[in-house]
Amino acid sequence: MGICTSYWARYYKAFTAYAGCNVVLAAAAAVLCAFIAPAAAGSGIPEVKAYLNGVDAYSMLAPSTLFVKIFGSILGVSAGFVVGKEGPMVHTGACIANLLGQGGSRKYHLTWTWLRYFKNDRDRRDMITCGAAAGVAAAFRAPVGGVLFALEEAASWWRSALLWRTFFTTAVVAIVLRAFIQYCSTGKCGLFGQGGLIMYDVSSATSTYSGPDILAVIFLGIIGGILGSIYNYFVDKVLRTYSIINERGAVSKILLVIAISLLTSCCSFGLPWLAKCISCPTDLTVSCPTVGESGNYKGFQCPTGYYNDLASLFLNTNDDAIRNLFSTSTKNEFHISSLFIFFGAIYCLGIITYGIAIPAGLFIPVILAGASYGRLVGRLFESISTLDMGLYALLGAASFLGGTMRMTVSLCVILLELTNDLLLLPLVMLVLLISKTVADNFNKGVYDQILKIKGLPYLDAHAEPYMKHLVARDVVSGPLITFSGVEKVGNILHALKTTGHNGFPVIDEPPFSDAPELCGVVLRSHLLVLLKGKNFSKDRVVTGADVFQRFAAFDFSKAGSGKGIKLEDLDIEEEEMEMYVDLHPITNASPYTVVETMSLAKAAILFRQLGLRHMCVVPKSQGRPPIVGILTRHDFMREHILGLNPQYNE
Amino acid sequence: MGICTSYWARYYKAFTAYAGCNVVLAAAAAVLCAFIAPAAAGSGIPEVKAYLNGVDAYSMLAPSTLFVKIFGSILGVSAGFVVGKEGPMVHTGACIANLLGQGGSRKYHLTWTWLRYFKNDRDRRDMITCGAAAGVAAAFRAPVGGVLFALEEAASWWRSALLWRTFFTTAVVAIVLRAFIQYCSTGKCGLFGQGGLIMYDVSSATSTYSGPDILAVIFLGIIGGILGSIYNYFVDKVLRTYSIINERGAVSKILLVIAISLLTSCCSFGLPWLAKCISCPTDLTVSCPTVGESGNYKGFQCPTGYYNDLASLFLNTNDDAIRNLFSTSTKNEFHISSLFIFFGAIYCLGIITYGIAIPAGLFIPVILAGASYGRLVGRLFESISTLDMGLYALLGAASFLGGTMRMTVSLCVILLELTNDLLLLPLVMLVLLISKTVADNFNKGVYDQILKIKGLPYLDAHAEPYMKHLVARDVVSGPLITFSGVEKVGNILHALKTTGHNGFPVIDEPPFSDAPELCGVVLRSHLLVLLKGKNFSKDRVVTGADVFQRFAAFDFSKAGSGKGIKLEDLDIEEEEMEMYVDLHPITNASPYTVVETMSLAKAAILFRQLGLRHMCVVPKSQGRPPIVGILTRHDFMREHILGLNPQYNE
Repeated sequence: MGICTSYWARYYKAFTAYAGCNVVLAAAAAVLCAFIAPAAAGSGIPEVKAYLNGVDAYSMLAPSTLFVKIFGSILGVSAGFVVGKEGPMVHTGACIANLLGQGGSRKYHLTWTWLRYFKNDRDRRDMITCGAAAGVAAAFRAPVGGVLFALEEAASWWRSALLWRTFFTTAVVAIVLRAFIQYCSTGKCGLFGQGGLIMYDVSSATSTYSGPDILAVIFLGIIGGILGSIYNYFVDKVLRTYSIINERGAVSKILLVIAISLLTSCCSFGLPWLAKCISCPTDLTVSCPTVGESGNYKGFQCPTGYYNDLASLFLNTNDDAIRNLFSTSTKNEFHISSLFIFFGAIYCLGIITYGIAIPAGLFIPVILAGASYGRLVGRLFESISTLDMGLYALLGAASFLGGTMRMTVSLCVILLELTNDLLLLPLVMLVLLISKTVADNFNKGVYDQILKIKGLPYLDAHAEPYMKHLVARDVVSGPLITFSGVEKVGNILHALKTTGHNGFPVIDEPPFSDAPELCGVVLRSHLLVLLKGKNFSKDRVVTGADVFQRFAAFDFSKAGSGKGIKLEDLDIEEEEMEMYVDLHPITNASPYTVVETMSLAKAAILFRQLGLRHMCVVPKSQGRPPIVGILTRHDFMREHILGLNPQYNE
Repeated sequence: MGICTSYWARYYKAFTAYAGCNVVLAAAAAVLCAFIAPAAAGSGIPEVKAYLNGVDAYSMLAPSTLFVKIFGSILGVSAGFVVGKEGPMVHTGACIANLLGQGGSRKYHLTWTWLRYFKNDRDRRDMITCGAAAGVAAAFRAPVGGVLFALEEAASWWRSALLWRTFFTTAVVAIVLRAFIQYCSTGKCGLFGQGGLIMYDVSSATSTYSGPDILAVIFLGIIGGILGSIYNYFVDKVLRTYSIINERGAVSKILLVIAISLLTSCCSFGLPWLAKCISCPTDLTVSCPTVGESGNYKGFQCPTGYYNDLASLFLNTNDDAIRNLFSTSTKNEFHISSLFIFFGAIYCLGIITYGIAIPAGLFIPVILAGASYGRLVGRLFESISTLDMGLYALLGAASFLGGTMRMTVSLCVILLELTNDLLLLPLVMLVLLISKTVADNFNKGVYDQILKIKGLPYLDAHAEPYMKHLVARDVVSGPLITFSGVEKVGNILHALKTTGHNGFPVIDEPPFSDAPELCGVVLRSHLLVLLKGKNFSKDRVVTGADVFQRFAAFDFSKAGSGKGIKLEDLDIEEEEMEMYVDLHPITNASPYTVVETMSLAKAAILFRQLGLRHMCVVPKSQGRPPIVGILTRHDFMREHILGLNPQYNE
């Protein structure tokens, strides 16, 4: 009796220590996230995707986000949450690339002059694509998978040059990673060296398969598709609920994180009691049960010579749990009931954890849940199938990844590089094919859903059907503000103050041309630089090229996020307001234009394929003002179009 | 003495039989090629690339080309040429896809009604991309490599949907391939089953590497880059020479093939005499020397217990030669001198074989030459490096592939799937990186060079620098032919007869509009369908939508290559020539337009990115005719632009 009491006392002490540590770590992550950079919460992949689509929101890739993403992710993973580090690593890579792409950070005194060559939209976008690829390459130790992920999921525009650049980046990642692994081969880097370049090797399993195996795989694919779309559905619902809580302020955010942390601790410490002790296999090279280190067989409440299979999954690092599930030739290592409990817990915890104010990747929870139901299905087909349970776990993970994320080639290569299972490739392809096809019938991929919830104006590659019934003119809205080729300073300042437009059409009028005609488009940022230079003249004359004696080309280059000249920085005096400034030198004289009667679908494709920010709509008939309106990204959003043309609302 | 004479007599008899068979097979391939489908000569990858770029030449993917490609390739490879089957398989895949995409072949009575849904440019292009991917997937047993090859090298436009479709295709290829390999595992399919899903497995070699190994790899990369660009240079020169010979007619083509065949036979039968006999290793599981079957150790002139290493390379199938070169733990299987002779012979034979009138892939010669100098470099670094010779051969092949073809990710994955060398991936990436970078300094990739020699109007993804100094108006040439919205039949017929234009602008004039304005663009093929329907009216009135009562949408769908209505098929009577036809229903009312002062570089990007065939140039100022000209693919060709604007010639 005395032993029993002390036993329970020890258990409560252990639980308190465990849950306490977790809560402290979780709270630290939440504090970082809530107070320093709220944009660092979540996976980060949707944000990178949105940036590469052309959404240039300042905080998404700011240095503070980078800082919180790195340390928040470390704290979050350490706190035992069911979250991955992969998404945050992609975001981290993108943030570092952004920092380089904007010429370093003046605020933190990290600048280099040569970086100014990247100060334009396209090179910065390419850099960030490479950064995302590097993130995946480092997270999964999958360099080719990184390239493919960047191209399939992250990037909106593909070019051969981009392929080459991402390949270059991930090749460097692979070589550096390989060098570190070599250096760490003696075990002096903690968990880093584990697994070498292949994190979860399953290549030791035989990989011949026949008819029944393929049946099992098809079954897995269908299950993965269904479970994946349900997962996405609930993630969507939970995110919407959490966004209400998170909007209440930093304190609610932190409380939510603590609540989820406690729940997670309870699950991982409480559920293993449901499992029975299993006697250690005899033919082992690893120690069983393992104590004090991460390993295959956790003792938990069991006596020496026995292990608790649920504890081996719950009370391990996520990486080790995956390694356990993928382990081959260990058919009976896990009880069916344990696998079922683990799957249920991880599936639910994964859903409710994403969306709290910590950096959280989706890959690991999805792989964990997928691998556990993969093993379950394997046990189901045990009598007719000869595939190893480790391979079933891999195929299960593939099916669930396909069902939630809806990637194909990149997942295939990432899984290949994670597990070295080349001979299994046809089955992995089959399972991805089926799970994606099944899941696509129900809803969109999880990243696309998150993008939508966040309200980021993401432009799809294809035009929507209702756009075919509309023409470009139908979506032009709001008053159009135009400038003359030589415009009064006061007018420009007024327009900049009263609108948030980033581009203004410039129209040449007599006496500079015979009739009013569209000269081009001028950008807000360039106008600000020009006004700052105070190159004004009293009369309405073309001063032209002498502007370039006062400005260097780099003065007009894209400034770092949030660091360009602001309207408040200008000090235009009253008398200067009546003076004129020649806009021709800074006008883009070749804007892309469409005629007002152009099909909206075709205009949308033009806008999206060329990656435009402004598109001029010009009149079809003569004798009217030379421009009808200017279209931006927001004018192609579903809500805007259907708001203006409600008859196409389904 | 008597023995010696009979020995030489037997040798000559063997040579005669060998060379005779080769010449007959080669001549058969050449006859097929020269008389049935000249377009089937060569690799076929440049043609597929051109098609996917928008060059729609009839013969390139015709059923006759398909037939010759399949059988010519079989004959050519059997004839012992230093050619591969990979390029032809890509072309074969594309031809089959084209056949499906045009709704089967009426000529050969292979049609299905449901295939008509593919009868449009975009779906047909997607089909052909999938066909090319399937070709690579089947040739290298590399499904993921196939997807990447199609996207990196073949396709000019990428979309997520396309990725998904190619992935689907190659997944099916992988599963079918796997089933056949399973079925053939008992050896009843000849050479097909060899190697299983991994054709040249090198995974057995240890793959730890250190500083000196990386030095060796960098050296290999540089050599690969240099040798690759020299290879491309000579292929270019040889192709230009051969095209003069081939233009003389079918007989010269066949004679050239026979000459090269004889030369190849002489090399493969003569050069092994330069090698000394090597005694068989004792610890072998395979028989040495092998007689009467393909194998590692060929006896040739050597007594029992000895083998001739050069003969083992020359007198084997290309696949087995590669397998021999890639074989691990066989450091001294090949003498340095033998490797050197083999490399020199294959390098030169590869250069002079490509361009003769047989289907000929480039992958195999390049892999053979690369693998042999890889082993050579391995012997060079023997003292300081610990990498296996088989791995050196693989890295050599990678470097030479990178140096000639300039692909990156796809080669990486193809090599990975060929050899199962995942742990070597960082080194393969490094070597590809270096060889491509080095070679890009000298010339373009081999496929781009062949495209240029063939004179196919390939549009690059980026605009050339001289385009920045020009505007769209500068490249408009030739008389512009326009139609009225309601046009006289005689005028249309005259325009169709006297020009080869495929698109004509349609202009609405009073009384149909207030002022002349651009209504759209009408296609030649649609005009022919309309004229065939004889929907004419006596007066100049808009008949409008009742056209669609006489035509179904499928009547206007893209006909199979060379199978649309021709001008000669029309029988318009004299009195009908004076009648009118309303063009509005078949006019594309939303053509993409650019203003005449648009920078040519931007116009070129618009043209290329959206995959256009016609682009209208409209005037900037008012009061002029509503269209300045129409630009097509040929107007963006370097020769055309620099011909019109010679001042930008360097």
